[in-house]
Amino acid sequence: MPLTPYQQLEVEFRRLHAFRSAASILRWDSAVMMPRGSSDLRGEQLSALETEAHSLIISPRVSRLMDRADANLQMLDDWQIANLKEMRRERDHAIATPQNLISRLAKATARAEVKWLEAKQKSDFSIFAPHLEEVVSLLRNKAALLGKALNLDPYDALTDEFSPGLRTEEIDAIFTSLGRRLPGLIHEVIELQASRPTLEITGRFSTSKQRALANEMMKALGFPFDKGRLDESEHPFTGGVPGDTRITTRFSPTDPLTGLMGVLHETGHAMYDVGLPDAWRGLPIGRDRGMAMQESQSLLLEMLICRNRPFLTYAKPLLEKAFGVSGPEWEVENLYRLLTRVRRSLVRVDADEVTYPVHILRSCRLENEILKGDLKVKDLPEAWNSRVEDRLGVKPTNDAEGCLQDVHWAVGSFGYFPSYAIGAVIAGQLYESLRSDRPELDQEIAVGQFGGLFEWLRVNVHSLGASVSTPEVIKRATGKPLSAAAWLRYVEAKYLEE
Amino acid sequence: MPLTPYQQLEVEFRRLHAFRSAASILRWDSAVMMPRGSSDLRGEQLSALETEAHSLIISPRVSRLMDRADANLQMLDDWQIANLKEMRRERDHAIATPQNLISRLAKATARAEVKWLEAKQKSDFSIFAPHLEEVVSLLRNKAALLGKALNLDPYDALTDEFSPGLRTEEIDAIFTSLGRRLPGLIHEVIELQASRPTLEITGRFSTSKQRALANEMMKALGFPFDKGRLDESEHPFTGGVPGDTRITTRFSPTDPLTGLMGVLHETGHAMYDVGLPDAWRGLPIGRDRGMAMQESQSLLLEMLICRNRPFLTYAKPLLEKAFGVSGPEWEVENLYRLLTRVRRSLVRVDADEVTYPVHILRSCRLENEILKGDLKVKDLPEAWNSRVEDRLGVKPTNDAEGCLQDVHWAVGSFGYFPSYAIGAVIAGQLYESLRSDRPELDQEIAVGQFGGLFEWLRVNVHSLGASVSTPEVIKRATGKPLSAAAWLRYVEAKYLEE
Repeated sequence: MPLTPYQQLEVEFRRLHAFRSAASILRWDSAVMMPRGSSDLRGEQLSALETEAHSLIISPRVSRLMDRADANLQMLDDWQIANLKEMRRERDHAIATPQNLISRLAKATARAEVKWLEAKQKSDFSIFAPHLEEVVSLLRNKAALLGKALNLDPYDALTDEFSPGLRTEEIDAIFTSLGRRLPGLIHEVIELQASRPTLEITGRFSTSKQRALANEMMKALGFPFDKGRLDESEHPFTGGVPGDTRITTRFSPTDPLTGLMGVLHETGHAMYDVGLPDAWRGLPIGRDRGMAMQESQSLLLEMLICRNRPFLTYAKPLLEKAFGVSGPEWEVENLYRLLTRVRRSLVRVDADEVTYPVHILRSCRLENEILKGDLKVKDLPEAWNSRVEDRLGVKPTNDAEGCLQDVHWAVGSFGYFPSYAIGAVIAGQLYESLRSDRPELDQEIAVGQFGGLFEWLRVNVHSLGASVSTPEVIKRATGKPLSAAAWLRYVEAKYLEE
Repeated sequence: MPLTPYQQLEVEFRRLHAFRSAASILRWDSAVMMPRGSSDLRGEQLSALETEAHSLIISPRVSRLMDRADANLQMLDDWQIANLKEMRRERDHAIATPQNLISRLAKATARAEVKWLEAKQKSDFSIFAPHLEEVVSLLRNKAALLGKALNLDPYDALTDEFSPGLRTEEIDAIFTSLGRRLPGLIHEVIELQASRPTLEITGRFSTSKQRALANEMMKALGFPFDKGRLDESEHPFTGGVPGDTRITTRFSPTDPLTGLMGVLHETGHAMYDVGLPDAWRGLPIGRDRGMAMQESQSLLLEMLICRNRPFLTYAKPLLEKAFGVSGPEWEVENLYRLLTRVRRSLVRVDADEVTYPVHILRSCRLENEILKGDLKVKDLPEAWNSRVEDRLGVKPTNDAEGCLQDVHWAVGSFGYFPSYAIGAVIAGQLYESLRSDRPELDQEIAVGQFGGLFEWLRVNVHSLGASVSTPEVIKRATGKPLSAAAWLRYVEAKYLEE
């Protein structure tokens, strides 16, 4: 029996997935294994794979098959209709931007990234500025074309590539709630925490012991080491592909908690990939639902579950055993205080749970203004510094800890930043529902039983894959539309406790 | 200016190379890094890449471009004409076998490999026999089609895939010389060695120390660690791609010499890849000249250079320092005796330099007879055992150390075995010329200077890439046609010294 148009599309998209997943393993290899001098060669391999994937998705044959499949929707199951919709979404994104613009952007961002690194090392924005100008100008083009094709506001069109379905309207409403409450809250929390004694952890902790402990905890969390790995890299990330999930972290011999929290954060991402439905593997709906959902899973595990007393009750004896330590600084309450300390940090990646969204709000507003042309690239450092001071009461002393701290703009990832803060908010909303559905959660976690936690996430989040939009995932999982309310209740309760 | 047909072919073949080199890194990853449970997923990735590479090379567009380039040969340089010839060779190989047969072979060999492993573990040939029958029947088809397309004898057509230009006529002449001399020589050497006292190495040697020593020696040999790696895997191999050369070995805590010799063997392969001309990278003539040449480079380094007194003079203090050892068993002469011991071994991969070709000759003759139908698959174990006994004077006690010892037939690699013995013979012939061109070689090696050795190999072998056939490489490098004479002179001198 010949394949139907829909079935032929499945074959094509599985092939697309094979190319992309090959590329994903090669990117992991670039960060973890590849010799430094082989990056040009790797660039050629990745570019061949990406070009192939792009040609496949924009091919007239694929579009024809979509039209023919659309004409026979009554023959498809609901999940197949959702899958077809995702295929079309991907095709629409891919086809909206001409190959010429994509390749100019690829070159401009490759140059800009190098110059960004140099500018950051020298803390001299002027080295980076002209390259950022070029990237912005190309991105404006891309955003306009994408927006027109998808019938979206240009910035929404960019955001939609990272977190499908997220719109400025919802983002703005959430950011308004956060922006209204956070500066005051940060002030109150810092005042409150000033009076609680906290002991620092000192000494040296072998990275092989840290690695063994991280492995042990990942196993307890349910990470399947027969289908995944933990390694080390300059910047921690979760890579690979569902079915071969590879996380990395960085261990510091003087700071065992940061490396561990990094592992737990990435394990949150990884468990999302692990929980995606096997039956949809290789199909567009079999993927995760974008960056905001990904970030919700990593933050939920790291911030809400692990930087909390029940988890630390479980972790304390493991830490003591792993490093052969004991003493008041290793008591649960002290570990909790160390891991929930709020500070007016200047750098996003070092920020705590409460100040983190402030960094995101600022970067989102700035990238919006730059894209619209309301803010000139040359005025970015001043705008950045004054807003940091306004919201956090501290001021960057140089651009390296100011507007040069993040690589996102250099590589053209405008529209990515919202995913971080929305991810936190989603984590808060999921956590509230999870706790209400599973009152025994804290007791389970305190004894190292994580099956209930991940079962809830699997049923309510992971198993949906990309079958519905980001806001719809939240609505189905929590019964409520996405809002900042639950996350704000959570941080207030956690950080303003007496 | 539009690209000429020849230039368009270069673009296509560079793209082909990018796909293949991506696949090569993924195969390395499968052996070294991949979690065990991810092999199906990896299979999909590799199959997508291989299918894409195959479609590219057999596309009508590529054939049309070849015809148009052929019509304007006067516009091309010599190296471009050689490159075009290699392109055509690859195309002819690829197009001769229908996709349907390739995919049936892929499935049959996948099944056969699993059954081979089971049969070997249980030492029961009957488990493997029906699967080998199937593979042989498909391979006969392939050999006939390939032979017809390339105007070659069927077996030569298979051999040509592994070692371009090697023909039965030359192989047979060499095998006749080897077969005539080796059984007697092995007997004489074993008699002679029986009277030389040799001290065994005992104790435990940490694998991290072995790894550090291997790294140090690889550096001294000139292996570029900024464009390559050393790792560990179940079976040692050289993988990756020129520009990102990855070798693996296996260290045993009780046997530091075998792991080290494995590294040196693979480093021989690696240095060939490293020495290939940069200017031709990604083009067909930029590749190595097949498996016999590859094997010549690994055997030259391991057997002729490193299992020899000058190298051991250099290695002795490094071994003593690395493992904190000393004593008579670590003296140069004793190490030399350990590393040149000749034994009537039953297993090819454990065989010494002198008996090794005997294993190859037997396997080559048997695979020839099976392919022609002169020997039935079911009669293989008996034929194997009787020939081993006839040539080596010992007899396998079971099929695991008999005809099930090698995976080659299970995976359909008929025509591969000659490359091993021809590789040894080539190594001998190159070594004779090298020593005559460079009388100071031994002194250089004894003090750890390997620049001269590899410069000679680069100029005379590596830099030719795949621009000429296997026999032509030898002729250019040594001034003589390929023959077993030099290698036989070398082993007689080395193993019959008084």
